[in-house]
Amino acid sequence: MTDSLARELACIDCGTVHPLGYRLECEKCRGLLELRYDLDVLRARGPALLAGGGLWRYAPVLPIADPAHRVTLGEGGTPLLDCPRLSKVLGVRSLAVKFEGANPTGTVKDRSSATGVAAALQFGFTATSVVSSGNAGSSIAAYSARAGLRSLIFAYARASAPKLLHMAATTADLVLYEGVYDDLITHWDRLVESRLFFDCGASRNAYKHEGKKTIGYEIAEQSGWRPPDVVVAPVAVGETFIAAARGFREMRDAGWIPRVPRMVAAQATRANAISRAFRSGRPLEPLKIGYTVAEGLAAGNPGRKGEWVLRLLRDGRGAAGDAEDEQILEAQRTLARTEGIWAGPTGVATLAVLGKMLAAKELDPAQSYCAIVSETGLKTEAAPPSRAATAFDFDSLERLVEQRLARA
Amino acid sequence: MTDSLARELACIDCGTVHPLGYRLECEKCRGLLELRYDLDVLRARGPALLAGGGLWRYAPVLPIADPAHRVTLGEGGTPLLDCPRLSKVLGVRSLAVKFEGANPTGTVKDRSSATGVAAALQFGFTATSVVSSGNAGSSIAAYSARAGLRSLIFAYARASAPKLLHMAATTADLVLYEGVYDDLITHWDRLVESRLFFDCGASRNAYKHEGKKTIGYEIAEQSGWRPPDVVVAPVAVGETFIAAARGFREMRDAGWIPRVPRMVAAQATRANAISRAFRSGRPLEPLKIGYTVAEGLAAGNPGRKGEWVLRLLRDGRGAAGDAEDEQILEAQRTLARTEGIWAGPTGVATLAVLGKMLAAKELDPAQSYCAIVSETGLKTEAAPPSRAATAFDFDSLERLVEQRLARA
Repeated sequence: MTDSLARELACIDCGTVHPLGYRLECEKCRGLLELRYDLDVLRARGPALLAGGGLWRYAPVLPIADPAHRVTLGEGGTPLLDCPRLSKVLGVRSLAVKFEGANPTGTVKDRSSATGVAAALQFGFTATSVVSSGNAGSSIAAYSARAGLRSLIFAYARASAPKLLHMAATTADLVLYEGVYDDLITHWDRLVESRLFFDCGASRNAYKHEGKKTIGYEIAEQSGWRPPDVVVAPVAVGETFIAAARGFREMRDAGWIPRVPRMVAAQATRANAISRAFRSGRPLEPLKIGYTVAEGLAAGNPGRKGEWVLRLLRDGRGAAGDAEDEQILEAQRTLARTEGIWAGPTGVATLAVLGKMLAAKELDPAQSYCAIVSETGLKTEAAPPSRAATAFDFDSLERLVEQRLARA
Repeated sequence: MTDSLARELACIDCGTVHPLGYRLECEKCRGLLELRYDLDVLRARGPALLAGGGLWRYAPVLPIADPAHRVTLGEGGTPLLDCPRLSKVLGVRSLAVKFEGANPTGTVKDRSSATGVAAALQFGFTATSVVSSGNAGSSIAAYSARAGLRSLIFAYARASAPKLLHMAATTADLVLYEGVYDDLITHWDRLVESRLFFDCGASRNAYKHEGKKTIGYEIAEQSGWRPPDVVVAPVAVGETFIAAARGFREMRDAGWIPRVPRMVAAQATRANAISRAFRSGRPLEPLKIGYTVAEGLAAGNPGRKGEWVLRLLRDGRGAAGDAEDEQILEAQRTLARTEGIWAGPTGVATLAVLGKMLAAKELDPAQSYCAIVSETGLKTEAAPPSRAATAFDFDSLERLVEQRLARA
């Protein structure tokens, strides 16, 4: 078993360094925190540090110290599939798909669920929680079950049926919210402060976020430590994008890879706050959004992580784009028919954006590309689950949480 | 790239040896054929022969000579998950789940689709075909697309909606059959004789069958070449069971493992022809069957592969059992809640049977067990696909095949 080289938490805004521990923001400025590792050891030992397969192969660059806490359902080690037929359709020299639908619950979220739930164990929590449109909910529920922890999953009542079914199967505590989704998140953030449960949300927890960094490490290692010129990552609040970019920078700083790939942020046009801000050069403005087929990208207000994405894009000569729902559905069909890969609309938004930006000559077809396809196509449509509790405001939510924890 | 050590096809009934080639049965007695490998090389080189990851790591014991034909979507390399909580529920010392839902299309079928479609390339075919209740259809369609081949997928009109959706996404040629399912298979067998397409069915093709052997190799390698005492495998016509058993025997004969695990055949009670024959000691009799939640196990007439399963069970001191639909659904819930693994009813039949046989003291709780869980839970329920052709008898089927191949 390999040791974790995590050494500290650093504020991404003011740079203040904090010791390792369960802490959601900077004590000084309330900024977001990121984990830092012992770069000297990474540099000296190189990839020979890595051992075993799947996500925990990268344990040295993950923040879980005790191997007994490293919960697993076999996540990570997903295929990086060279796609010659799709490359031809898009008119690009070389394109590989990193297919995250191969993870245990069918999404990239399993990477962050593994480190999130492992961190809940590490810090002595007995329950986890997340607000989710579906993928995160079933993933956190599954990993919590695997670790023997309770999970409290809050889902929007209009979440798609197969995702509701999956959540209902993996948690004993699914709560459907019938009010406004943004209100639910605000209410839930308040619940986090009370420390009734471990924060498995996407907005602040650096430990949970960290698991997704392994997608960058895998892309690099599967490319013989010479990653493709450009990596296209989906952006809702930006977890996957930020984590992948951080992974590439860490590897470059440690001398594992010669240079970092250029990062492209892909959004749905119906939820394009970050792409819009980046392309216009203006500050990030929250959007009131409606439905998009890319359910996992439906974030109107990406908050502080959105700002972080913009900073990474601007510092790293990145690019951003967005695609209409029809383009996303077309990309889904094209990927299935040309390469046999069946991914969900949330997953193929990167390919839709890539195709659009290539057609508009915003990207160079002579470069090599990797598109992160974040979810399986198997979560599309189904009948609603039969069992669930409902809530409609903060008080009813809190009651439910307390009742359910009391029942444990 | 590693060479294939396949050397010949041997009849499992009369022992006649045939050279490698596309041949569906013994020339002499019409018996089923199995592939044989160069055991001397396997014995001399040992597991050091293996290289790379996923299914094609086992290329030396697969029958595809040219690496260019080895089509892949990242199948194989699925997790073998130790399940301490579930072990406690079932009252058994040690239980690991081999989770095949992690394959690219969510089922164990991806293993045989990989070698089936690779063999279609190897023998110069431009189209593949299969009759399917869902899993095999979308899997063959996906691998065919990946290889640039046409696929003709014949499905029963009453197949479950998410499976129909998945098939419709991955093939341009989905044919829904509205007559009697057994008639469809008889019709289709006649089409195979005409060699319009490569046979990707489960009944005869040794090349297609062979990919599933890798599940045995993986279980052994993931157990440090000391496989568990007992392996529980699902049985419809018996592909997975036979392939796993053959893999274990091959490894024992080559000296890679000290002994073969005891094999338990798991069926749904509503389609239990093999379990019934084995337990009563009587010959295999086809059953008229109705619906079972374990859709992938709904085979009333397992045919010659069913006889092969019985022979393996009788020769190898195996065991067999079956579980009612309610027990299967209960096993599905228990697996999700205790270990976070979301599998389909077809997938968890092995666990339901294991639980039932342990409770009846037909199996020893002090032994170590591995249950093959053959499919993800993500294929449960959905709305029907919008597009598909229909057929109702042999002539209309044949017309459709010809029309569609002509359109290629």
